[in-house]
Amino acid sequence: MKTIALLALAAAAATVSVPAAAQFAKAEDAIEYRQASFFVLGQHFGRIGAMANGKVPFDAKAAQENADIVASMARLPWAAFGPGTDKGAPTKAKPEIWTEQAKYKEHATKLETESVKLAAAAKTGNLDNLKAAFGEAAKTCKACHDAYRNK
Amino acid sequence: MKTIALLALAAAAATVSVPAAAQFAKAEDAIEYRQASFFVLGQHFGRIGAMANGKVPFDAKAAQENADIVASMARLPWAAFGPGTDKGAPTKAKPEIWTEQAKYKEHATKLETESVKLAAAAKTGNLDNLKAAFGEAAKTCKACHDAYRNK
Repeated sequence: MKTIALLALAAAAATVSVPAAAQFAKAEDAIEYRQASFFVLGQHFGRIGAMANGKVPFDAKAAQENADIVASMARLPWAAFGPGTDKGAPTKAKPEIWTEQAKYKEHATKLETESVKLAAAAKTGNLDNLKAAFGEAAKTCKACHDAYRNK
Repeated sequence: MKTIALLALAAAAATVSVPAAAQFAKAEDAIEYRQASFFVLGQHFGRIGAMANGKVPFDAKAAQENADIVASMARLPWAAFGPGTDKGAPTKAKPEIWTEQAKYKEHATKLETESVKLAAAAKTGNLDNLKAAFGEAAKTCKACHDAYRNK
């Protein structure tokens, strides 16, 4: 069972193209790493959202820079959800992450895909393209949070 | 004085190519952001160090993936050291960061430069190149920590 989980995770890791040597000294580090990478991702995603929602003026260059960072950051957290990292530090991660590896992996891959689309949309310099791609990416965040993150 | 600090920071930000819209809602967010980005950077840098120091077998692909992430992450923390972010949450950042902007900026730029060199060295797939570039980058981390980070 543990082997299957490990294989599933390895497969997930391969798919979401995280470093082959994505190892953590202890569960606590993995938990801090995924929370840190999601926080950085969220800050840049939020800046794009502020433009998409008209809260700050649209700045095509800033949108592109932020979207490129979102696309890079979106590849990182997944390797930090390895077996045994469901506890070890305060975490909102639901146990289903480890019991529904295949489904969880779909969400992870979806965010990576939508982030790449967001970066491509930002490169067009067109606010409507950015708004559309941001909306899709935001839905992906919410779907995963609703399913796998405790309130 | 505040204007000068802001201009110095804007110049630094421009040089280290952080997003033009690198804004934080509150000091607490900036502090969490820089700590988060340094933590992610450190995890990947540490994986390269483990190979450079022979603690884990050299894996050229993993070294390159980790070095690319280090190079991306090394661009991020600096914008989060803006005016007024010296307090607001627990931080080891020394006040000199804000009183020695030019010197601090040199350290920031140096890390970005060394990180790019590290990624280039990793791409050669040669362990000796990786060791040399890792050593230089590690010196850069230490120099800045010694000068601007409280123990």
